[in-house]
Amino acid sequence: MKSTNKTTITVPGFKFSAISAGIKKSGLKDLALIFSEDKAIVKGVFTSNKIKAAPVKVDIERIRKRGKGQAIIINSGNANACTGLRGLKDAKDMAINTAKSLGILAELVYVSSTGLIGRPLPIQKIKKAIPDAVKKLSSRGIKNAASAIMTTDTFEKIYSKKIRFGNKQGTIAGIAKGAGMISPHMATMLCFIVTDISVTPGALDSALRQAVNKSFNRLVIDNDMSTNDTVLIMANGILKNSPIKKNSLPYYKFEAALSEVTYNLSKMIARDGEGATKLIEVIVKGARTESDAEKVARTIAHSMLVKTALYGQSPNWGRIMAAIGYSGVKINEQKINIHINKLELVNKGIGAYTNRLPGNLLSKKEIAIIIDLGLGKKEARVLTCDLTEKYIRINACYMT
Amino acid sequence: MKSTNKTTITVPGFKFSAISAGIKKSGLKDLALIFSEDKAIVKGVFTSNKIKAAPVKVDIERIRKRGKGQAIIINSGNANACTGLRGLKDAKDMAINTAKSLGILAELVYVSSTGLIGRPLPIQKIKKAIPDAVKKLSSRGIKNAASAIMTTDTFEKIYSKKIRFGNKQGTIAGIAKGAGMISPHMATMLCFIVTDISVTPGALDSALRQAVNKSFNRLVIDNDMSTNDTVLIMANGILKNSPIKKNSLPYYKFEAALSEVTYNLSKMIARDGEGATKLIEVIVKGARTESDAEKVARTIAHSMLVKTALYGQSPNWGRIMAAIGYSGVKINEQKINIHINKLELVNKGIGAYTNRLPGNLLSKKEIAIIIDLGLGKKEARVLTCDLTEKYIRINACYMT
Repeated sequence: MKSTNKTTITVPGFKFSAISAGIKKSGLKDLALIFSEDKAIVKGVFTSNKIKAAPVKVDIERIRKRGKGQAIIINSGNANACTGLRGLKDAKDMAINTAKSLGILAELVYVSSTGLIGRPLPIQKIKKAIPDAVKKLSSRGIKNAASAIMTTDTFEKIYSKKIRFGNKQGTIAGIAKGAGMISPHMATMLCFIVTDISVTPGALDSALRQAVNKSFNRLVIDNDMSTNDTVLIMANGILKNSPIKKNSLPYYKFEAALSEVTYNLSKMIARDGEGATKLIEVIVKGARTESDAEKVARTIAHSMLVKTALYGQSPNWGRIMAAIGYSGVKINEQKINIHINKLELVNKGIGAYTNRLPGNLLSKKEIAIIIDLGLGKKEARVLTCDLTEKYIRINACYMT
Repeated sequence: MKSTNKTTITVPGFKFSAISAGIKKSGLKDLALIFSEDKAIVKGVFTSNKIKAAPVKVDIERIRKRGKGQAIIINSGNANACTGLRGLKDAKDMAINTAKSLGILAELVYVSSTGLIGRPLPIQKIKKAIPDAVKKLSSRGIKNAASAIMTTDTFEKIYSKKIRFGNKQGTIAGIAKGAGMISPHMATMLCFIVTDISVTPGALDSALRQAVNKSFNRLVIDNDMSTNDTVLIMANGILKNSPIKKNSLPYYKFEAALSEVTYNLSKMIARDGEGATKLIEVIVKGARTESDAEKVARTIAHSMLVKTALYGQSPNWGRIMAAIGYSGVKINEQKINIHINKLELVNKGIGAYTNRLPGNLLSKKEIAIIIDLGLGKKEARVLTCDLTEKYIRINACYMT
């Protein structure tokens, strides 16, 4: 499932474009532009890494100051992180040049970068390319934009959802990139969401945080956290519905739809984890608290030994037990049950099968590991993927 | 450096043996025995995983109850973990049978296991093999014992150190196994240390904890923590030196020698990490506290992206910066300097080199990453290795 719709996704009032600015040596598209015809409310969630890339710093400032915007300019191939004062100037220049070409204020342009850390941004190439990106803007360009933000991703990640408010039908559409450096809180993952639905700034911020918490923040590819993670949402209100306020009925409807978008984009990122062959969902039930459940799920999703075992289609549940044991959560070994998909592997802390496992149990592309701690009623789920030789190969030589 | 001595290492009053009991399908040696002619003081440090293997539970109990011993029986090929009540009985049976063959009390026998989790121990095979292990005991057998405790290790890990007290010369010798599941506090790593030096129980315990803290507990191979980690020390006092008391001058001499043994065994474990091609020492200086320094060093040593980059001989220092940023320690990006071996890569938070790196910088077998946080005077070091396709291959099919 590379995208939910076979037909082109459009969102009223939004245009997209993507071109090759020559940042990636491969010549692939590396500059994407998202444009809202009307001024939109903009909210964002960013990396919690203490070392933040220059564009992240710029966006945080813009949202803090006014939280309005009309455009997002995104480059792949260079992260513009650890680039000092020059990096900040480059990020601002990207915004200024985009604004000039669009005929809007620079403060209404948000900036995002992904790629190698520590190299100066080839700002001249980007400046030169921006007018072309503006010229190519199209309401049908979302797939192009999704492809231009890719680094080691192997497919574009797009998901859209329509919701009805009375007789009006609004759209939420998002694009994302992921692949590596994903953990524990949003790592080089970028996600841009646009909607024509009218939402108050407070409601938009709250819904975004909720949605991110249960999706991107529950996603583990490796154990690294990027300097560049960004989720931005633009709501231009063109639907002209009565603006959605926090904690109203339409708010919950909006939040659920937004969560569906971010959860499905997260799943696509996990499925497309660097070198991954399997999407793995770790579901921990029977915990005393949700935080306990999350901690256990996250520890398992982080375990290199569990992830290599699943790659090898080896039902090595001992590694899952070991991970539960070092998760830091109070457990009772004798109460733990473990299922993989529908098959019980562990019952009350010890092996539950004696026969050979069904051959196809671990050959599936989607694996659910279900742990019941037997201690309470809370649960949590975390998305991850298996760990393969290809992950190593990709990351051993990722310098270009 | 597989061992410090070309000549056979012996320790007065200790004998060793190793045989194949048929636990490993390969037919390699899988049962080791260490025997002290005199009753020895025994101290230990064990996994902090909440799920502990049966033999670990037995040893903890023995040390708590009397802290004396004469033998350690160790099998590889099966961890005897997550094996319920049967596992506990099997571990005790291993001790009982060893004691019978040796003609000593079962309470004086310690037990240790390493290998696959969750399968019942083939106790009949072990029982049958024990008399042969006893028969083969030899004061020159330490290398054999070191090879019988190996799982995915590629070489035996032995280190010995002589120390002089007045006109008497004592010996501390240790064997260890490591390879995978090593982190953050002692993971399937086993280490057995013997000494003829007379040490009081309190001093032995304290010196062991100190030594382990700066060596095995600073060792990171992957991010998994085993259910079986064990460091045991036996001091039989045959040297007849005046028993070493805590915080005396001889104590500090003893502690330094013991630390040298454990640190060198740790280095061997890191160099022999599953699939590793390089030994990596992460040194963090200029921290406000030692705990800050350790946290940063540990985060870098855990980073899959840093470790794959070093495997690929790629000077991707951005990943080191990112790891510093998410270590959870308060840092100042503009004060960070990074060296690899003697070459400065980062100065005040940004790239310090513009030319091509010397080609041989990262081709070395030993790499030191030196980070100066520029905030204080404290430092810490952590040992690790690079992350390679071979690690994945080893762990994708480790079921035998």
